[in-house]
Amino acid sequence: MLGPSPLWLTLDFLGTFAFALNGALTAVKAARLDIFGVITLGMFTGLGGGTIRDVLLDALPPATFVDWRYLAIAAGGGLIAFALSRRLDKLATTITVLDAVGLSTFAVLGAYKAIELGFGPVQAALVGTITAVGGGTIRDVMIGQVPTVLRSELYAIPALFGATCVAVAHELGYQGTLAAVGGALVCLIIRLLGVRFGLNAPRVPGED
Amino acid sequence: MLGPSPLWLTLDFLGTFAFALNGALTAVKAARLDIFGVITLGMFTGLGGGTIRDVLLDALPPATFVDWRYLAIAAGGGLIAFALSRRLDKLATTITVLDAVGLSTFAVLGAYKAIELGFGPVQAALVGTITAVGGGTIRDVMIGQVPTVLRSELYAIPALFGATCVAVAHELGYQGTLAAVGGALVCLIIRLLGVRFGLNAPRVPGED
Amino acid sequence: MLGPSPLWLTLDFLGTFAFALNGALTAVKAARLDIFGVITLGMFTGLGGGTIRDVLLDALPPATFVDWRYLAIAAGGGLIAFALSRRLDKLATTITVLDAVGLSTFAVLGAYKAIELGFGPVQAALVGTITAVGGGTIRDVMIGQVPTVLRSELYAIPALFGATCVAVAHELGYQGTLAAVGGALVCLIIRLLGVRFGLNAPRVPGED
Repeated sequence: MLGPSPLWLTLDFLGTFAFALNGALTAVKAARLDIFGVITLGMFTGLGGGTIRDVLLDALPPATFVDWRYLAIAAGGGLIAFALSRRLDKLATTITVLDAVGLSTFAVLGAYKAIELGFGPVQAALVGTITAVGGGTIRDVMIGQVPTVLRSELYAIPALFGATCVAVAHELGYQGTLAAVGGALVCLIIRLLGVRFGLNAPRVPGED
Repeated sequence: MLGPSPLWLTLDFLGTFAFALNGALTAVKAARLDIFGVITLGMFTGLGGGTIRDVLLDALPPATFVDWRYLAIAAGGGLIAFALSRRLDKLATTITVLDAVGLSTFAVLGAYKAIELGFGPVQAALVGTITAVGGGTIRDVMIGQVPTVLRSELYAIPALFGATCVAVAHELGYQGTLAAVGGALVCLIIRLLGVRFGLNAPRVPGED
Repeated sequence: MLGPSPLWLTLDFLGTFAFALNGALTAVKAARLDIFGVITLGMFTGLGGGTIRDVLLDALPPATFVDWRYLAIAAGGGLIAFALSRRLDKLATTITVLDAVGLSTFAVLGAYKAIELGFGPVQAALVGTITAVGGGTIRDVMIGQVPTVLRSELYAIPALFGATCVAVAHELGYQGTLAAVGGALVCLIIRLLGVRFGLNAPRVPGED
């Protein structure tokens, strides 16, 4: 069981917070929202991926809903984004890094949860990716934007790589902390390189 | 068990009808839809909140789906909205009040269902709110609008207050009809005051 | 049990492929997406209906998620759409027919799954329709369009007719392959006639 270990629980909380903060900030910039809307979108971003994960894995009620700490952390992230939205631009780099840590953690923990519940490696890789990108996708759909994950920057791909590392390592018999950390680092590094160099996945040939 | 009592079942049906009627009318005004689209959006508005509630509470299959009366009432509300869409403007006040009754009923019944299934007060307050606003949010997302709940008027907040009243009362040992009626009245009054005086939750400071 | 029979499994795979291919093509035309986005939308279109079906029927984890063949077929459909998007216009008729076959298969199999799990005829007809149109609806919402199913051509209605045929036949005691094929043909014919003659369901009276 990876989930309950203090390190990973801390990282899961950190990821939830970073996603909620970043998600709420994106929402503030894109649409005219009241305080309740900002917090709501922060909570969707922070908790949405884990909720979809638990629907697909038949692990209802969702862990992010049962444990009030996830709820409080996500609401807190949204509230901070609302209160400090004009000053948070200075923290853009920090927030991007935190968001990448959240992406990596969610991808790895999502894949492990699938493995622990007896799903195969394809499902583990897929559900890890969905856990990592699901929350931001719900947020984008709610504010009327084509989800970032579908059109720009490497966002889903690092998550897919990280989760796949975990699934493959498990198939090969490695299932300790090392494999998890390795998968998370793969995701983190690809994501940060993608942000740094503005990388994108290939588009449809012939489009301008 | 509050759910099966005739009074609350009647109110739940009334709320479903009001939400479907109001949801379908909003859809007719905002997008060019055929009869099937209007009925579909009415059903989403009337049944969506209860469906999300039952996913979060692991009470699948959703009550609103198993009991054909919910399906028929929601479809009927949508059909009436389609047939009478040009005359219903005269009934705007009635529909707003019915919608507020539905909001109050759904918030209270959603919170009670969570409590009955053993969830804590935070979850009860949250799931009551989601039950009340979930259907309208799905409708808005489907017709390409930023959900009303995120940006204008007091809509989610009265639901949150009503559901919180129920959760707090239960924590303090009150769980009879009185607490439920109290929570519903709190929601109803705040909602109607919000409509009457055009109140909104605070926005991001500095926005025009 | 209809599901596991080789004929229906083949049709279910074919429908998944057709939906993924067609869904990904629609996405390519409507929004600027990278390869990952196209495949993702193909998978949503091919697998989304079955996922909603299994949430409503409490048959989680979704069959489309547990069986890796569905995942692979849907991803393959999306990949082909991405690779050949500029040449697939020549195959428009073939793809439309394949999509109609998918619609019919999903409607009938969705209705049968509901019946097998003990749901009533209203639920069977409804869940068959949702299975058939759910994936395309999710796709449209994600790319910011009002779902086709709500506003144009006969798309949901043939599915509703096909699924209703299956439900009514089952109520009357017919549950063999003949009833299933009959329901599928009803859906297929109405759909193809709708495409051929550009039929639409009635709109709100008085709209231009």
